[in-house]
Amino acid sequence: MNDFQMKMSDGVRAIPVFGLPEIVSGTNIGQLIADQCLANNTDPCDGDLIVVAQKIVSKSENAMVKLSTQAPTDAAYRLAETVGKDPRLVQVIMDQSKRVVRAVQGVLIVETHHGFICANAGVDQSNIKGDQVVTILPVDSDRSAEIIRRDLLRVTGRKVGVVISDTFNRPWREGSINVAIGIAGFDPLNDLRGTKDDFNREMTASVVSLADEVASMAQLVMGEAGRVPVALVRGVEWRSGKYSTTRLLRPSNRDLFR
Amino acid sequence: MNDFQMKMSDGVRAIPVFGLPEIVSGTNIGQLIADQCLANNTDPCDGDLIVVAQKIVSKSENAMVKLSTQAPTDAAYRLAETVGKDPRLVQVIMDQSKRVVRAVQGVLIVETHHGFICANAGVDQSNIKGDQVVTILPVDSDRSAEIIRRDLLRVTGRKVGVVISDTFNRPWREGSINVAIGIAGFDPLNDLRGTKDDFNREMTASVVSLADEVASMAQLVMGEAGRVPVALVRGVEWRSGKYSTTRLLRPSNRDLFR
Repeated sequence: MNDFQMKMSDGVRAIPVFGLPEIVSGTNIGQLIADQCLANNTDPCDGDLIVVAQKIVSKSENAMVKLSTQAPTDAAYRLAETVGKDPRLVQVIMDQSKRVVRAVQGVLIVETHHGFICANAGVDQSNIKGDQVVTILPVDSDRSAEIIRRDLLRVTGRKVGVVISDTFNRPWREGSINVAIGIAGFDPLNDLRGTKDDFNREMTASVVSLADEVASMAQLVMGEAGRVPVALVRGVEWRSGKYSTTRLLRPSNRDLFR
Repeated sequence: MNDFQMKMSDGVRAIPVFGLPEIVSGTNIGQLIADQCLANNTDPCDGDLIVVAQKIVSKSENAMVKLSTQAPTDAAYRLAETVGKDPRLVQVIMDQSKRVVRAVQGVLIVETHHGFICANAGVDQSNIKGDQVVTILPVDSDRSAEIIRRDLLRVTGRKVGVVISDTFNRPWREGSINVAIGIAGFDPLNDLRGTKDDFNREMTASVVSLADEVASMAQLVMGEAGRVPVALVRGVEWRSGKYSTTRLLRPSNRDLFR
């Protein structure tokens, strides 16, 4: 085996972090992950990418809204009528959005203030106590990820990258996949432009979304239920540094589908 | 740990299959994977999902076109002018497509005869010997996957699922990710509708694209270059049976972006 093969021969692994308690407002997630990994004998290693479900980050930051507090505007009532959803929920979604991308019966796709294009602005009722409460996306998921990264470094001494993931649907294809909505400590894109392919031809269009692929991989052990909101992804090569999730967002002037 | 945790505690793993030779027309890919896994001491296990890059499947099926054989039509010349590509390449792309979805300078997005919406109909010049030859997608990637699955079963005795993967770009987000363009032996969707979330509320919109997440995971060990066109993905739960990739394609009457 050559050097690359030696390094890669273990492959990549996603390890679920079991046993995390229900997350409440103010929970220090980095500390909690470190404690639970120790309890599970699955301590993070240098180079791991820690994938954390958006839902627990939102809960820890109290990024939650009671529907009963909402006073929907006329616009929210009209949009609610179009999409067939609770006007109070639609008001929450509108508050999280800079514009509506598509609205038809049963489907409301918006661009969030962060720049994510997704259904319902990521506002979600699943896995939350109480029927009348929804989570919204963290205000700044990169900042949330950076706090978790620093806490993990402080507690464990390990240099890891952090991904905050959420489950998005997509145009054209059925089935949701997990994507990154926040990152810290690493470059979320693996830019292979300028490198050579197997026949020594320069690769012209190969920028891989490392962070999204890692988020999708983690989903395979996290699941939608089952209370596994964190996974360690081991064996992926990444470039460390200060980067933002905005690297994953295509500028609207280069996008053909909004 | 509970039963679910015991089963999942090893997590999921993607293991690269190193050392595969350059694939030529007529290569039996299933046999070749079995042989190389034996040589590498990474034999497939029952329950593995074997991810195979589209490129080697196309090569084995001689799904390749010489640009010098192309006589572009007027329509191809006009479209080539719009997108700034070689008219012979555009002719190959048009022959693979049922319609153009978007065409602007530098970008040609089509719906292929299979129903995939992607750039350049998956026609690709990278990792191919000779500047004037391109690969096209396999005629029927599900059939290609099924042949590989049967050959692996025959040679190794292992019951595996097979994914043919390709690298697609996406609306709204930068960076490509790997997706499934062919599958065999398993349900590519993990349909959680009707199951309960952690608070016993029915999950209404949770259908996960297992096959796409597995393809993305495999990409993390396959890379774009480096000649690792096959990976074993271990530890993922899947439902066995006869399924088609069409399950991953949203019908156009339910799609808001074409």
